[in-house]
Amino acid sequence: MVEAIAEVAALRHKVAEPRKGGARVGFVPTMGALHRGHAELLRVARSQADVLVASIFVNPLQFDRKDDLDRYPRTWEADLAICEEQGVDLVFAPTVQDLYPQEQLTFVDAPVLTQYLCGAFRPGHFRGVATVVLKLFNAVQPDFACFGEKDAQQLAVIRRMVADLNLPVEIVPVPTVREEDGLALSSRNKLLSAEDRLVAPRFAEALRAVIATVQAGEQDVARAKQAAYQLLAATPQMQVEYLELVDADTMTPVETIGDEGLLAAAVWLGGVRLIDNMRWNR
Amino acid sequence: MVEAIAEVAALRHKVAEPRKGGARVGFVPTMGALHRGHAELLRVARSQADVLVASIFVNPLQFDRKDDLDRYPRTWEADLAICEEQGVDLVFAPTVQDLYPQEQLTFVDAPVLTQYLCGAFRPGHFRGVATVVLKLFNAVQPDFACFGEKDAQQLAVIRRMVADLNLPVEIVPVPTVREEDGLALSSRNKLLSAEDRLVAPRFAEALRAVIATVQAGEQDVARAKQAAYQLLAATPQMQVEYLELVDADTMTPVETIGDEGLLAAAVWLGGVRLIDNMRWNR
Repeated sequence: MVEAIAEVAALRHKVAEPRKGGARVGFVPTMGALHRGHAELLRVARSQADVLVASIFVNPLQFDRKDDLDRYPRTWEADLAICEEQGVDLVFAPTVQDLYPQEQLTFVDAPVLTQYLCGAFRPGHFRGVATVVLKLFNAVQPDFACFGEKDAQQLAVIRRMVADLNLPVEIVPVPTVREEDGLALSSRNKLLSAEDRLVAPRFAEALRAVIATVQAGEQDVARAKQAAYQLLAATPQMQVEYLELVDADTMTPVETIGDEGLLAAAVWLGGVRLIDNMRWNR
Repeated sequence: MVEAIAEVAALRHKVAEPRKGGARVGFVPTMGALHRGHAELLRVARSQADVLVASIFVNPLQFDRKDDLDRYPRTWEADLAICEEQGVDLVFAPTVQDLYPQEQLTFVDAPVLTQYLCGAFRPGHFRGVATVVLKLFNAVQPDFACFGEKDAQQLAVIRRMVADLNLPVEIVPVPTVREEDGLALSSRNKLLSAEDRLVAPRFAEALRAVIATVQAGEQDVARAKQAAYQLLAATPQMQVEYLELVDADTMTPVETIGDEGLLAAAVWLGGVRLIDNMRWNR
């Protein structure tokens, strides 16, 4: 069985030896509830790493709603089995006490990158994400780390953090994995009712409609968005939280549609929040 | 002559070799204008390091006033001579462009630790300090770094940052160096007029008076402070910005005077801002 370690000091000790021998250390941070999307992150990381570390930690600091934290899926045994399958060498699974032994008084923040999209609707979320990822990076000290493109704003924040803080870590983005019907894989999908699950693919469909419009030459933001809203009019149970065409580096909305960029959106479906995004390039 | 390096990549390359061989890397970050206080930091660091790196960088991000940044003393040749004297192996002297090649969008913040004292009067200052120190740490990757007790709130912020972010760096505090008349050494002292320089020692004297009162058993904060204000009544050209008895870890004011703590103060003298602090322990 793959080895699980809870303490930062023990983890460091464990990774120090192979690193000294020149091993390339890869890292995949997760909050558990692993699905095929995570398996893909692990597969990509495995192919580039001599030593592969995965972390499983549901980070309280990044939840803006306590109910969301409380019901976040926890599937420890299944997670370990997936790590084992994907050839993970070490699972870092700290307790909250291990990672936050005293009150956290130091935070990493990227205010410009987090003023729109999820950042606008989940106050403190990305501060929590950036802070815990930096803590995990400093604990694992990886040569590279894999992040999913599914969480586009998170990826942008982490990439900018690495550049802005001179972190000696390479960020490897991994494309979103989707169900056959187009729904982006997410740990939250299993919270959907059977009925809502049937409707859920309409979300990706709406995004594809916008991208098709943009690829066809649309320059006006409002008209491009219309392609999504028209399609979603048929599923009133799916409520759009945001749907924006943004600059892929700064995550700020574009005024007119340029040659490339990112379409990002969040919807609520039966009390479950789903996010997805797609790029355009013309 | 001691070697000076401007680029992060070149610095990393230079330090990688001895580190691989097991060398202990020491680091002293400075803003130049080096005086005997810095020499003491370098001396302490030298005694514990195999490889000693000093940085000289006047960090725009931590200046809340442009006039203060513009007139901050720059004494490059003399600084290099002091580094040489103290046995520094490498001087890291990036340009602003080297350290901030693009707009800095990621920041490190410790809001609780910086709400009082200097933090209350210099908005953004400690965010700039913490951010640049983390950038420098990530560039140098030292085993330990020396900081002066003179900048007490800065030391508290850096110590907490290291603990909160799991940084693999040991922080070594170095006691304040003083002139014979008691004035704490500071790069800003040379900005004082000859007349003000004669009055300046009253600042440390006032702090010593408070500490004496506390050591003698005073428990009331207002009465303890009175010892300083009485003494400073004779020097109206010296204006107190703040004078607080604080918890030495959290830098928040104490309500009644306990067994130990820190007295910290800032004064303005002829347009120059001076800070100083002393501990009590009874």
